[in-house]
Amino acid sequence: MRKVTVFGAGSWGTALATVLAENGHDTLIWSHRENQADEINNQHTNEKYLPGTVLPLTLKSTSNMAQAVEHAEIVVMAVPTTGIRETCQKMMLTLNKKLIYVHVSKGIEPDSLIRISQIMAEELASEYVESIVALSGPSHAEEVVKHHPTTVAASSPDLEAAKVVQDLFMNQYFRVYTNEDILGVELGGALKNVIALAAGVSDGIGYGDNAKAALITRGLAEITRLGVKMGANPLTFMGLAGMGDLIVTCTSVHSRNWRAGNLLGKGLKLPEVLEQMGMVVEGVRTTKAAHQLAAKYDVAMPITEVLYSVLFEEKSPKEGVEKLMLRVKKTEMDAHYDN
Amino acid sequence: MRKVTVFGAGSWGTALATVLAENGHDTLIWSHRENQADEINNQHTNEKYLPGTVLPLTLKSTSNMAQAVEHAEIVVMAVPTTGIRETCQKMMLTLNKKLIYVHVSKGIEPDSLIRISQIMAEELASEYVESIVALSGPSHAEEVVKHHPTTVAASSPDLEAAKVVQDLFMNQYFRVYTNEDILGVELGGALKNVIALAAGVSDGIGYGDNAKAALITRGLAEITRLGVKMGANPLTFMGLAGMGDLIVTCTSVHSRNWRAGNLLGKGLKLPEVLEQMGMVVEGVRTTKAAHQLAAKYDVAMPITEVLYSVLFEEKSPKEGVEKLMLRVKKTEMDAHYDN
Repeated sequence: MRKVTVFGAGSWGTALATVLAENGHDTLIWSHRENQADEINNQHTNEKYLPGTVLPLTLKSTSNMAQAVEHAEIVVMAVPTTGIRETCQKMMLTLNKKLIYVHVSKGIEPDSLIRISQIMAEELASEYVESIVALSGPSHAEEVVKHHPTTVAASSPDLEAAKVVQDLFMNQYFRVYTNEDILGVELGGALKNVIALAAGVSDGIGYGDNAKAALITRGLAEITRLGVKMGANPLTFMGLAGMGDLIVTCTSVHSRNWRAGNLLGKGLKLPEVLEQMGMVVEGVRTTKAAHQLAAKYDVAMPITEVLYSVLFEEKSPKEGVEKLMLRVKKTEMDAHYDN
Repeated sequence: MRKVTVFGAGSWGTALATVLAENGHDTLIWSHRENQADEINNQHTNEKYLPGTVLPLTLKSTSNMAQAVEHAEIVVMAVPTTGIRETCQKMMLTLNKKLIYVHVSKGIEPDSLIRISQIMAEELASEYVESIVALSGPSHAEEVVKHHPTTVAASSPDLEAAKVVQDLFMNQYFRVYTNEDILGVELGGALKNVIALAAGVSDGIGYGDNAKAALITRGLAEITRLGVKMGANPLTFMGLAGMGDLIVTCTSVHSRNWRAGNLLGKGLKLPEVLEQMGMVVEGVRTTKAAHQLAAKYDVAMPITEVLYSVLFEEKSPKEGVEKLMLRVKKTEMDAHYDN
């Protein structure tokens, strides 16, 4: 039994806290809203994010940051990507011990081009960090709380820490594989949102499953190409945090990135799409970052480039797809390695 | 302009013949039913297999085997897997020239454990075979005739023949990559039906997208493991005929294999499922072949083995899934290499 604090009471943070509580860990969930913490403590629900779900009675919540930090032997960071820096800074105010941090966020910062674990390492003093582990894979929160089988990868260069996280979460419906390649796991998780946007565009134009399967397949190939050039293990991209997560995100109409792409495919411009969505679309930021990474590492990423020109240069989505279809004739292996 | 005969007037054969005719090739489609050939010639439709589609006026059809063979410089073999041997035997009666053969079938013969191109090589006298090329990838016929973007691999150890096939089919909505690894392409195409059955079982039990994405991901890993042991290129399985086709088949409710699996997941036994389907379910035969291949090449294929026990040993699907979830804790890389 471990003492775990989950920061962030959205659907994924709450679902993970539920798994931990059901596994017998002393689990506290931090919410920045006091009324949400009260709801979890008193009604054992989180209606806004997991409607209809009764949470374990042993799951406690607080909106008090110092109390949340004090409780933790292990931290699960489940706040939105854009809130990571600020949450770390607030934690630092009272942190006084070395912890394992598990993060479940997906993104790459444009311009700095750093990953979530690197952002956390920047904000948390190193004497308080034993290890940072990324937990990633195909995992809709609503299915996890229904105990439907789910598999994820726990990734850290510190394999012992990854094993701690594996032991923490693993049970008969939640299977955790360890993976030492956190670079690959974080890249896969972030860049899949670019391909999900592209898949949404294709569906929005009215194209079918053939086009979408091609985008997913060639999309994973270009993500892998970039990742390998950056030093990641190609097999990571064939795994749960790569292909697995990519498939779920591109084939689910619940994905925010797919929905944004869908509106683009129907002819809306990016500002209209963002207004209509009314929330952050991670894949838009990540497309900018991917475009920058492709240039920095000199890797051909044709799908990313077409999407970038649709998002930021007002190119027509349909012309973009035609451009992809009419590139020079290739062998499939050339396409893997250099384009 | 080439003279091509497509053998088989099902939905895929007809869609491919349409692409060829639209590309300006002198295309003849052979049907074993005279009235179907008449319909194609006179009404320019094939209502049973491609309802609502007007076929190119230049596309001709015949039910005369000798005439079909006489016409061909290139043969596209699009008959059902179980009809390949017989069709080759009938062609042999009047064959008198060396041809390129393109096949689009997916399966492995149980017991003999040979692939489609090997079956064809057994039945066609070698003096009449210039090359055999497998054409495979994520490709619903109905989308191709609507000119929705589609990508496939043309595969043969004879790269020149693969390039001929690439030139034959490629246009602005149909993109063809060449691939020299026909072993990998044929294995990927056949074994995806095993995983599609398993995905159907998971959906039939009532599990969600997380479980299905895990099955697809770990399924491709075990297919790759077997293929590599047999001598295939691992990258082929990350390509269109591997991952691409697998995704389309596992996420489409139109897939026959998925539907059969779905009925199994809902509790029906195999004989009931086959009766209800009223047609060949290729994945059932292929599961038997895959089980035999796993033993022959000493490769761990846990999903195949669970499915085999559900199909042929009356194991409960739900217990099978639980068995998969509760296997020993692993690193993701170990899972790639040895289990």
